[in-house]
Amino acid sequence: VVVLLAGGTGGAKLARGMLDVLGDELTVIANTGDDIEIYGSHVSPDPDLVTFWLADRIDERGWGLKHDTFHVMDGLRELGEDIWFNLGDRDLAVCLRRARRLAEGARLTEAIDEQRHALNVKAQVLPMCDDPVRTHVQNEDGWHAFQEFMIREQAKGPVTGVEFRGAENASLTPEVREALQTADMIVIGPSNPVVSIGPILAVGEMRAEMRNARVVAVSPLVHGAVLKGPTDAFMQWAGHPLTSDGIAAHYAGLIDGLVADEQATEIPTLVTDVEMGDAAARRRVAEAVLGFA
Amino acid sequence: VVVLLAGGTGGAKLARGMLDVLGDELTVIANTGDDIEIYGSHVSPDPDLVTFWLADRIDERGWGLKHDTFHVMDGLRELGEDIWFNLGDRDLAVCLRRARRLAEGARLTEAIDEQRHALNVKAQVLPMCDDPVRTHVQNEDGWHAFQEFMIREQAKGPVTGVEFRGAENASLTPEVREALQTADMIVIGPSNPVVSIGPILAVGEMRAEMRNARVVAVSPLVHGAVLKGPTDAFMQWAGHPLTSDGIAAHYAGLIDGLVADEQATEIPTLVTDVEMGDAAARRRVAEAVLGFA
Repeated sequence: VVVLLAGGTGGAKLARGMLDVLGDELTVIANTGDDIEIYGSHVSPDPDLVTFWLADRIDERGWGLKHDTFHVMDGLRELGEDIWFNLGDRDLAVCLRRARRLAEGARLTEAIDEQRHALNVKAQVLPMCDDPVRTHVQNEDGWHAFQEFMIREQAKGPVTGVEFRGAENASLTPEVREALQTADMIVIGPSNPVVSIGPILAVGEMRAEMRNARVVAVSPLVHGAVLKGPTDAFMQWAGHPLTSDGIAAHYAGLIDGLVADEQATEIPTLVTDVEMGDAAARRRVAEAVLGFA
Repeated sequence: VVVLLAGGTGGAKLARGMLDVLGDELTVIANTGDDIEIYGSHVSPDPDLVTFWLADRIDERGWGLKHDTFHVMDGLRELGEDIWFNLGDRDLAVCLRRARRLAEGARLTEAIDEQRHALNVKAQVLPMCDDPVRTHVQNEDGWHAFQEFMIREQAKGPVTGVEFRGAENASLTPEVREALQTADMIVIGPSNPVVSIGPILAVGEMRAEMRNARVVAVSPLVHGAVLKGPTDAFMQWAGHPLTSDGIAAHYAGLIDGLVADEQATEIPTLVTDVEMGDAAARRRVAEAVLGFA
């Protein structure tokens, strides 16, 4: 079994590549610090991105379900709502069902597992924990819940604070614990190290449970830049440059190797193109990562 | 001001006819005994039917919004949900917004008033009360919440019990009280006397507040039959025949006159065609009712 820690797009694309190679031997642990309760539903952006990618159902816009419509949002707008968080109709169905299952007493792990089965995803998709953990970000205007920072504040830096509220006291789920304990290899996906991978690593005993496996990180940097999202402002806050050395320093003490398109100074590096623009590239990067370990 | 007590289709059609004649001098008090919390939303079938009719937005299927789609329901079905209660996407938007407003502390009266303003409805639409009242129906299989009886049980009679749970202790809202106290006339719409009008009349001091105005009921019977819904089984349970005399007996002590296509024996009756198949007929019946009083 290979365990992949994933946030949104980068981690999800690598997950899709690894699915080609590993099939049901892949377990993804996804960040839930971005979760938000809205429209009577429970939105889990990262587990959903991963699941939709694995199901080949991701839309070209980069999030949500392929060919989804937005009629509920249109309806809410007609009623005078300020729609700052956009959600497609079938995407909403996923999130409404999740909210109902949680209200019925199901664990988030169970709700997400039912969903990946319904979408015929062979790999396991685990939320990082069942307890609510919420990422908050501070900029000069104050503290913001993660989605509000990203959308309403348009990710406006400089970032002056990041908190994963609830993470410290969150328990590892039996599923996450078992996956980490039986993993041949743990891969940290090419997602934002601070706000996508950071919350996962902040959950209770997560780091401690990762100590016995080989851990390899895949750099989210392509030619020294970030393809998507505000990784720049967050790495600046963390005090690390946008280089392989910066990524390695951020994961210091945790990883045994790095996969990146630029050599790191103090850690074994597999230098290879980590851009994953199409299915062939995603599979190639996945194979390189699995071979490296 | 004219106050109309309305359940679903029949009452809503008469409301639409009366809107032509009265404009914003019309106040509709709608049954909320059919309300149901589902899909993270608060569905108020009768206030919505009335509002959608008044906004000329009712769909040809007889409920919900014109040209609505059902993509959220399709999504839920794909996830394995048993969709017994169907709700369109824009209809869901209405009901999600309502649930959110209630969660924010708004009264149902306020939420429904905001909605009718958003849909440019001139007449006032009031829920019968803000307190939760839920109609339950008993048949040989036991007690059922109203929507489950109607949909899952397919309204299977004979009906052996009807309860408006919460009605006795429900308070009149200031809006309902004022409407009744200032009404020139109160019209009981041609909705199911037992389960559509019944819950309204069961709310706290409703009957007492109606004593000072002239009250006229419009029969839901057309040529001795009911056009829509299981009025038959409910009138049978109430012990009244499906005739003008049966309707008059059901409303005995409450009404001063009846509008029906058949003369009642012991109460002043305006005999006229009460079928409301098109806009002209709806207006004609509305004018007849208003003239009769």
